[in-house]
Amino acid sequence: MTIYELTAAECEEFLSHAKVGRLGCARKGQPYIVPVSLYFGREERCLYGFSTVGKKIEWMRDNPSVCVEVDAISDQYQWTTVLAMGRYEELDASEEQQRARQRALDLFQEQSRWWLPGGAKLSSGVEHASPVVYRIHISSVSGRRAVRQPPQPPSAIGG
Amino acid sequence: MTIYELTAAECEEFLSHAKVGRLGCARKGQPYIVPVSLYFGREERCLYGFSTVGKKIEWMRDNPSVCVEVDAISDQYQWTTVLAMGRYEELDASEEQQRARQRALDLFQEQSRWWLPGGAKLSSGVEHASPVVYRIHISSVSGRRAVRQPPQPPSAIGG
Repeated sequence: MTIYELTAAECEEFLSHAKVGRLGCARKGQPYIVPVSLYFGREERCLYGFSTVGKKIEWMRDNPSVCVEVDAISDQYQWTTVLAMGRYEELDASEEQQRARQRALDLFQEQSRWWLPGGAKLSSGVEHASPVVYRIHISSVSGRRAVRQPPQPPSAIGG
Repeated sequence: MTIYELTAAECEEFLSHAKVGRLGCARKGQPYIVPVSLYFGREERCLYGFSTVGKKIEWMRDNPSVCVEVDAISDQYQWTTVLAMGRYEELDASEEQQRARQRALDLFQEQSRWWLPGGAKLSSGVEHASPVVYRIHISSVSGRRAVRQPPQPPSAIGG
């Protein structure tokens, strides 16, 4: 197995194909993680998401420093993991954020992966509030990839 | 799709079968996530792990409030996610921690999933430091599970 550091371009390429990420936020020193669907806007280096109002939205409103981890793990010898650090911004219905909201909706529809748990409510829940749309401005990305050693060509084995 | 809250016992059962979790830590309000292998000691409600010294170990030494997220996601209608909040403790070679280290090693061997990226070093790296063994004392667990609606029995459809 060989492990490589990914370049920023490779990290962004990986983010653009991710279906699920783990969003991390923190309050008073306590981290919190939840799986979410996120949609990468490559030009503006933002991840867009949506959610009903709940713990993570409250925490991110309180402290907008967040991170998103995305990975693909086949087994212990073949995996990729990418971490994006960034800043949470809520996209409200104001005129000035209308364009960003539209961008988010376009990405959601394009990828048609409107799902959760970010937006899911319990069967017992009574809330049907409209979801919060948000984006994460990426400040830095890093990533690693493990690959199996390539097989030896026959000439290297002998014969 | 119906979404259920899991009981603490169901969360712990899920943790005990997890192969990979995402460990979250935070420093100065900035969360950080890394995938790790963790081994659940059910009796003592601890997750054991190991790692070479790096960013996450430094952060957890600085702030021992951590969380571990474990999930199994088939698709948008079938998933389980569990979050354990806890406190990091490093298991050094001192006599008083020898027993806990042995417990960790027993769990690692039992499950033979000695892998990374937690313990992996880059191919270009020169370090071969002995890994840090640690455990996370779980203070609380929570979890949710989404399941498809069960199929209607024929009698309910008619006929």
